[in-house]
Amino acid sequence: MRNGRISDNTIRRLPAYLRALEELQAVGTERITSSQLGRLLGYTASQVRLDLNCFGGFGTQGYGYNVAELRASIRRILGADEARPAILVGAGRIGRALLDNFDFADCGVHVTAAFDTDLNLTDMYYQGVWIYDLSDMERYVKEHPVEIAVLCVPEDAAQRMANYLVGLGVRAIWNFANDDLDIPKPDVVLEDIKFSDSLLELGYRLAAKSGAVSAPRPAPVR
Amino acid sequence: MRNGRISDNTIRRLPAYLRALEELQAVGTERITSSQLGRLLGYTASQVRLDLNCFGGFGTQGYGYNVAELRASIRRILGADEARPAILVGAGRIGRALLDNFDFADCGVHVTAAFDTDLNLTDMYYQGVWIYDLSDMERYVKEHPVEIAVLCVPEDAAQRMANYLVGLGVRAIWNFANDDLDIPKPDVVLEDIKFSDSLLELGYRLAAKSGAVSAPRPAPVR
Repeated sequence: MRNGRISDNTIRRLPAYLRALEELQAVGTERITSSQLGRLLGYTASQVRLDLNCFGGFGTQGYGYNVAELRASIRRILGADEARPAILVGAGRIGRALLDNFDFADCGVHVTAAFDTDLNLTDMYYQGVWIYDLSDMERYVKEHPVEIAVLCVPEDAAQRMANYLVGLGVRAIWNFANDDLDIPKPDVVLEDIKFSDSLLELGYRLAAKSGAVSAPRPAPVR
Repeated sequence: MRNGRISDNTIRRLPAYLRALEELQAVGTERITSSQLGRLLGYTASQVRLDLNCFGGFGTQGYGYNVAELRASIRRILGADEARPAILVGAGRIGRALLDNFDFADCGVHVTAAFDTDLNLTDMYYQGVWIYDLSDMERYVKEHPVEIAVLCVPEDAAQRMANYLVGLGVRAIWNFANDDLDIPKPDVVLEDIKFSDSLLELGYRLAAKSGAVSAPRPAPVR
């Protein structure tokens, strides 16, 4: 077990490796060197080797990596072949868009139930998932194994709902509420979809490409 | 102008700095050192100084950073105070969820029109944005300044639509289609919302916290 030493940045790159390997496998590539993989992803060869060495090292010098095996190993490391039980909290537009389009199973997650307060949404199946009234959530979580809550409630309800879910013993929150949640228990995993970070980065890169980013003046500090 | 030397990772961290500084300002903090800012964000003090030095350096040794001024500078760098014209392509659940909940203006973006093929959605205002028929998009883009397309079409239409938008001269695509788009022109900025990367990372961290990640065996490479 070397997890203690794996940096967040390495973990953040693993899904990108996985995507690249899946594409390579789809086009029939059998092996790849760290330099080639790095070029595909915009990393240096040594970065690739360092990242993959964190997990015990899969390559052989002079040969490279076996694409299918490296892909399988990364999927296993990321738990992509599991079926972790999850609930969807909030079945509004974003929640239903996820049920419509997002391949939870391919990420190792299985949504077993959804919850909402809107009577127009509750007591029905949506994409094979039953939408319960929110008042049934406590009982449901006590009676079923639930590891992950996919949090799709409005921003002003997000913190209250997160506290409630943590109190019920949920172990991870995938947060779409676009709010900086404060999670009271350090052993609960929080992962945010940060729409605004992504759009700000886009805006920066757009300005940089057009040369419109003015060299920022140092802010005067007295 | 030192943009050529700014790494993607630095750019990726700027929105996190901005969020931290906005919180600090909200609670009345006037200045902060690089170590304090680093502790807040989980970066080292030298990482913070390196990141902020890329943009000309805002701090003064022994004093630290003026929170309000650093925040204003980062907002300016990220273009958060601009109003870049954007169109929403696809006004389905995700598209409308964005119009409902997402603060485009706070990211320096102004959505001027939306497009869809669904007759139940077109020819109406939604959250102050007119939804046109997709067949009107070409004319609209030619007659109005449009820098960014927010791409919320189904996955199987995403690549075709991206090509079309690039052909119309759109300069950046904010992609929600959960597909790896291939952008034919290198000067067009592509920024993806990678839902699956985020959920895979959550799954990994969940397993790592519970100690359930088995030390991966090196894949045998022959």
